[in-house]
Amino acid sequence: MTVFEPLFVPEQLLDAVSGRAWLEAMLETESALARAEAAVGIVPAEAAVAIAERCRTELYDFGELLEQGRSAGNPAEPLVRALRDAVGGDDARWVHRGATSQDVMDTASMLVTRRALALILVELDRVAAGLAELAETHRSTPMAARSLLQQALPTTFGCKVAGWLVAVLEARSRLEEVRTERLAAQLGGAAGTLAVLGSEGTDVLRLFAAELELTEPVMPWHTNRTRIAELGAALDLCAGVLAKIGVDIALLAQTEVGEVREGESGGSSTLPQKRNPVRSIFARACAQLVSGHASVLSGALAQEHERAAGAWHAEWAALSGALAYTGGAAVAIADAIADLEVDVDRMQRNLELTGGQILAERVAFLLGGGSAHEVVREAALRTSTSGRTFEEELRADDRCGLSDAELTETLDPTTYLGSAEAFVDRALDAYGRMRSETT
Amino acid sequence: MTVFEPLFVPEQLLDAVSGRAWLEAMLETESALARAEAAVGIVPAEAAVAIAERCRTELYDFGELLEQGRSAGNPAEPLVRALRDAVGGDDARWVHRGATSQDVMDTASMLVTRRALALILVELDRVAAGLAELAETHRSTPMAARSLLQQALPTTFGCKVAGWLVAVLEARSRLEEVRTERLAAQLGGAAGTLAVLGSEGTDVLRLFAAELELTEPVMPWHTNRTRIAELGAALDLCAGVLAKIGVDIALLAQTEVGEVREGESGGSSTLPQKRNPVRSIFARACAQLVSGHASVLSGALAQEHERAAGAWHAEWAALSGALAYTGGAAVAIADAIADLEVDVDRMQRNLELTGGQILAERVAFLLGGGSAHEVVREAALRTSTSGRTFEEELRADDRCGLSDAELTETLDPTTYLGSAEAFVDRALDAYGRMRSETT
Amino acid sequence: MTVFEPLFVPEQLLDAVSGRAWLEAMLETESALARAEAAVGIVPAEAAVAIAERCRTELYDFGELLEQGRSAGNPAEPLVRALRDAVGGDDARWVHRGATSQDVMDTASMLVTRRALALILVELDRVAAGLAELAETHRSTPMAARSLLQQALPTTFGCKVAGWLVAVLEARSRLEEVRTERLAAQLGGAAGTLAVLGSEGTDVLRLFAAELELTEPVMPWHTNRTRIAELGAALDLCAGVLAKIGVDIALLAQTEVGEVREGESGGSSTLPQKRNPVRSIFARACAQLVSGHASVLSGALAQEHERAAGAWHAEWAALSGALAYTGGAAVAIADAIADLEVDVDRMQRNLELTGGQILAERVAFLLGGGSAHEVVREAALRTSTSGRTFEEELRADDRCGLSDAELTETLDPTTYLGSAEAFVDRALDAYGRMRSETT
Amino acid sequence: MTVFEPLFVPEQLLDAVSGRAWLEAMLETESALARAEAAVGIVPAEAAVAIAERCRTELYDFGELLEQGRSAGNPAEPLVRALRDAVGGDDARWVHRGATSQDVMDTASMLVTRRALALILVELDRVAAGLAELAETHRSTPMAARSLLQQALPTTFGCKVAGWLVAVLEARSRLEEVRTERLAAQLGGAAGTLAVLGSEGTDVLRLFAAELELTEPVMPWHTNRTRIAELGAALDLCAGVLAKIGVDIALLAQTEVGEVREGESGGSSTLPQKRNPVRSIFARACAQLVSGHASVLSGALAQEHERAAGAWHAEWAALSGALAYTGGAAVAIADAIADLEVDVDRMQRNLELTGGQILAERVAFLLGGGSAHEVVREAALRTSTSGRTFEEELRADDRCGLSDAELTETLDPTTYLGSAEAFVDRALDAYGRMRSETT
Repeated sequence: MTVFEPLFVPEQLLDAVSGRAWLEAMLETESALARAEAAVGIVPAEAAVAIAERCRTELYDFGELLEQGRSAGNPAEPLVRALRDAVGGDDARWVHRGATSQDVMDTASMLVTRRALALILVELDRVAAGLAELAETHRSTPMAARSLLQQALPTTFGCKVAGWLVAVLEARSRLEEVRTERLAAQLGGAAGTLAVLGSEGTDVLRLFAAELELTEPVMPWHTNRTRIAELGAALDLCAGVLAKIGVDIALLAQTEVGEVREGESGGSSTLPQKRNPVRSIFARACAQLVSGHASVLSGALAQEHERAAGAWHAEWAALSGALAYTGGAAVAIADAIADLEVDVDRMQRNLELTGGQILAERVAFLLGGGSAHEVVREAALRTSTSGRTFEEELRADDRCGLSDAELTETLDPTTYLGSAEAFVDRALDAYGRMRSETT
Repeated sequence: MTVFEPLFVPEQLLDAVSGRAWLEAMLETESALARAEAAVGIVPAEAAVAIAERCRTELYDFGELLEQGRSAGNPAEPLVRALRDAVGGDDARWVHRGATSQDVMDTASMLVTRRALALILVELDRVAAGLAELAETHRSTPMAARSLLQQALPTTFGCKVAGWLVAVLEARSRLEEVRTERLAAQLGGAAGTLAVLGSEGTDVLRLFAAELELTEPVMPWHTNRTRIAELGAALDLCAGVLAKIGVDIALLAQTEVGEVREGESGGSSTLPQKRNPVRSIFARACAQLVSGHASVLSGALAQEHERAAGAWHAEWAALSGALAYTGGAAVAIADAIADLEVDVDRMQRNLELTGGQILAERVAFLLGGGSAHEVVREAALRTSTSGRTFEEELRADDRCGLSDAELTETLDPTTYLGSAEAFVDRALDAYGRMRSETT
Repeated sequence: MTVFEPLFVPEQLLDAVSGRAWLEAMLETESALARAEAAVGIVPAEAAVAIAERCRTELYDFGELLEQGRSAGNPAEPLVRALRDAVGGDDARWVHRGATSQDVMDTASMLVTRRALALILVELDRVAAGLAELAETHRSTPMAARSLLQQALPTTFGCKVAGWLVAVLEARSRLEEVRTERLAAQLGGAAGTLAVLGSEGTDVLRLFAAELELTEPVMPWHTNRTRIAELGAALDLCAGVLAKIGVDIALLAQTEVGEVREGESGGSSTLPQKRNPVRSIFARACAQLVSGHASVLSGALAQEHERAAGAWHAEWAALSGALAYTGGAAVAIADAIADLEVDVDRMQRNLELTGGQILAERVAFLLGGGSAHEVVREAALRTSTSGRTFEEELRADDRCGLSDAELTETLDPTTYLGSAEAFVDRALDAYGRMRSETT
Repeated sequence: MTVFEPLFVPEQLLDAVSGRAWLEAMLETESALARAEAAVGIVPAEAAVAIAERCRTELYDFGELLEQGRSAGNPAEPLVRALRDAVGGDDARWVHRGATSQDVMDTASMLVTRRALALILVELDRVAAGLAELAETHRSTPMAARSLLQQALPTTFGCKVAGWLVAVLEARSRLEEVRTERLAAQLGGAAGTLAVLGSEGTDVLRLFAAELELTEPVMPWHTNRTRIAELGAALDLCAGVLAKIGVDIALLAQTEVGEVREGESGGSSTLPQKRNPVRSIFARACAQLVSGHASVLSGALAQEHERAAGAWHAEWAALSGALAYTGGAAVAIADAIADLEVDVDRMQRNLELTGGQILAERVAFLLGGGSAHEVVREAALRTSTSGRTFEEELRADDRCGLSDAELTETLDPTTYLGSAEAFVDRALDAYGRMRSETT
């Protein structure tokens, strides 16, 4: 997370992972802890109220806490001190009762994540809705499928988009799963034993988690970072899936291909004619930054003993960054899809670009037998020098036993789409199921 | 598999990701395809039988296929040719009907993965069983918990091991989920439309998946690599969790700590006295190698159009390596746990190393009030120069109002374990639930 | 390094990082150590001869050493034992005198690296020579430059290739620098003090390094892994630069662009007409695998105390893999360049694809003044609907003050190449300098 | 810079990579370009002056430029427009003459880097100076060397620190090399041909580079990102080397080891007795974040054609972050070393912890012959059950032919330091050479 975030990430999402958001989540954690401890009778009810009253972000300065946190090793320690000062009097001793700095930071990270994920999921849903509409509209629009960047066979644009949609649904499903099942409260005290809470530790843990509507973990996870690593991987998955869409749009938007164009394409400082696929480019850039941040999170699994000497500390910025840039990628693709211009004519012209060679597989199958592949390959090769079309070459080849009518029929891409449309329907069904499950 | 794998990875697992294993899986794929197509009447039943008969690994040489694959771009293309030659005659034309090389490679990768995961899960279960036993045995064995590598508070060894166990259960659960839900058949033909199969495409896909007991995907996933990325992330998670155990064992086995020792510790070429924690070290090395391989898989999400120009090809070795080294980490930790020597006396002595300072938190809590933290901190600091113990320093400090008996009681680590034992029970419950769910 | 290497990596390079190569390098290390110690009188001359005689690879089995190394933690320890047995008698005690396993492994890694780098550099030189020739041939061949995958302005194909060449020269220079300056002997004994060698330690170190023609380090580098990390980064740099060429070739070879084609393009199992850019694809796949392996090496810098508990062990396979796949990328691009087919006509036709819009910048500059950019942009936009060419639109616009002749001249790409040809000359000069420096 | 950076990174360095710093560098680039073009007569001298006068950061708002850059794809494009507006009149047309947005961004990135590197190098020098002093002071202070986290043999603390110093010098040297040789001006215009500048392109490039005291590249490097990748790798190297020091300090500061302590160790929110090695921990956290950012840079080598569709855009934040966190690691270790408390007595006591077993190698060497290793190993093993010391066990063993006096002498660590002190001297010599070369 550095200076360029605002270029890629919408303000709302930057806010969600900002210092203020972390501060708010940390204060919410302290407040919930006091309430949970009041519920079991460890903390006087009035003290819990007094503490909650001081858990307002406007009373504290995150920047200052970071400054003080330089010697303490984290910003929670100075916050606890400041909160105690703010509460004052006898009640101050009940602040942060039985908790450790990591309890506050980790629980706050879950709250920050939950809010950021909500925003990201909104954008992913916008992506999915846009793709579903596009897939339906172009269910039968023929275009060239490309393998290894070479035209391979006909497909439909709807089928291509359906592939994007299914990937987004799968990544969304994983992210949703992490959000629902893996965001857990953290409460262990200095050694993960909740020693200060005596025999009430697990009760407090249960109530604390309930207060925050977070999962109650089996036990403290101070150095069991599966949650964080899974979260990082799920964000990386989302960003990667969005980048795949970005790659395809950028390739389809090439001057020589011209099959799609971003509606509000970017201008150029020097080139008046250009319409750059800026959204797709941003999604790819964001995905690369998510990868970098997520690698910090997955690399931080092997933490020492009951609190890590460094790996934990690296998580805070990495998690914030991974959330922000995943959101950036989602917004970029949602915007790109929302007003994507599709050039159906150009798709058709590109399909015809090779004079029927894109149906070479079909011809070979119809010819059948051992040498069919060779007959067709040679005809294709001859076109590069003979000046004749693929169809003409095939007609001229005695080994090709198809009549003229058969050959013309065979070289019609619109009758060789296989299950393309069926796959669109299946993808839309999957989208429908997701919609009905999440609403 | 070439250089150092056999040092880290057991032979059985190396076999599971070997060239022969891939070849077998590719042939199994071709055979299942022929059977599925025979079932819908596309391929004559006798041809399917003839093809299945030729799908035996001893008829082909994977090394040779790789050699031929250099010009084709993958080893499936030469295998299809060799299989057609082996089948011969009219039946040969039914080989690989409607499929593309990637269908064979991807489906084979799922079969290879399924077998390797089975082996890995056996080892993870061995790890979990060993940890459960250890946690139970040492449920109440006191030891020092350490944060930032400093002694923090007492815990029990059982509680520490329970933390390892929960992490392993979580990583195992994710891996199991990927195995159950995300291993899918791949069948799309050259463009992902199953054009050759006409209107029967989706029927063949369904039957093909059923033949192999793989999930039927919504549509072909040639360039939707969520499955592969999720698999890589799940392996990385497992390896990371195992490495965390390795880190802790290596730290506990330090000469100056000496609380555990690997049973069959490694000797040294020059140092007769050494007993190196070789298994733990190997687990860490394996985890780092898994990370490297998994980064290739997550980095390969953004694949171009309908077949990637490179990113797909990088997956094969990366997936094989990630599986092998995850297994290596699992075996290493399973072995390390199986005969781990626990030095309960040394744990006790280390607890006493600071003359009670490890209970400083408790003293501060008992003293309560504003300056308690300072009183205790100063007493702790004085011990480094005064030659007196922490207890003596506290007694000598007027601000500490505890009686001698109270102080002695307060400085007894065995009465300040909080929920440590309760957490062991909760972890063992979770282990029990996993066991009953998976058997 | 797993089962698919032979697909990507030439046999000679696989041999260079094979178990046999490592074994040979380890034995060469032991032999050189004995000779160096004989030179200072620590080891009897006859013993050094006896040891050298037993340092032949055919006497040992690397696979077996790995097997035995499972308990020792590395394969050097069992090799030392086997070598002592082979030497036998009184001379056996002089084997490995004062050294530790890591001395043998690390020095061997340097020897293995040196040989593998020699092979890689030969391939890089083949790449550079091919690029130099191509740049010279096409110094003035006009083609479209593309930014953000959009046609931007004219350039020459020679200028594009010159850009590839300069990148290769820079990566080569860095790799050469690492080879010349950073491959160092390792000798420290069990603790990095060479205690066994008494006061002769530094003399032995000097002679040992000289025997092997490796750099003499300031001190042992058992846990100072800058060399290994720099090597990994240099290989990653090379592979990345080669992948850039692969990306460009694959893009230029697209059906819709068709400006280049790999000479021995790959066939397809199903698509007779396809000519896949297999070499470029392999280079990209290799580069991704190099990245994965190099990340292990750079991630292994923070090693504990005087010997790492895992990070060192992860280096062996990662280094072998990084070397092999970098070589794979180099061979792939060298082959791709060697017989690259360049379609100069297609480059010209693509330049004309936008009816002169690719020279929009030039028109805008000639028009000068504030609204020029807008005039040109609007003319460009109108072409998409009007059916008129860019030139016609400009002529029809009163705000464009250019005469017909001026406009025609302005829209001629061959007169707007700026320094393209000068840059080719500069790149060829740089190539010439590299050649004269290295021969 | 948003959330957690200020915790780790000093303000001065945050400033150096801030939005304001980027803006300043971008304006400096535009100003230098105008001056260079005035020098060859392309731009009127008065226009260059007018432009330079408007290249003041206070006239522009980087945040606003980012906002506008969302549609343009980068912040340079809106800056150019704003600068043209600020210059106004006829002179406005000479702004950014012949350049493209990437020229401005890339050149600015080099200027930002140069300033940040200067700050980082100051901190690295502070690290090196501190280490040199520490190595000299403790040249002969005996301590235990540890391999695989086990006590291995005696060394000196000076020798350990010398190892840190050499690593820092090597990483510093590489960073210096990148700073001196690889920071280059970028000027290519929209297609890398400098077409607008006609035949004056290379002259302008030369003068432009000279104005900014940056290296003149052979040709534009818009998609040849070796510079950026090398810079990222050099930063990763530095951070990794600093993290190694952090690892060792954290391990030496363990309660059970207690050989060093950070002077201003961090307090704990709950544990009064703790003195956490906060600086070392921060260095490790920073290094992990540098790795994440550097992986984005090395992963961005394979950029498309003449301007990348995403990979370039990811560099800006990644480079800023890599610089900032490397600086954070350097400051942390410089501070940690500056007031590191070394407990020489504890080092001695730890050396004696195993009752002489740390000299087992020496005993084995003295005994010589075939079974010596076994004799010593068995004596070491017996101590764990017999209650006798290693020395007593050896005395009681008939196979050990050493006299009591010989044995006592043999078990004295201070006479078995080999070249430890010589290596300190060699490291200090290397430090001296670096100092004399850079001043």
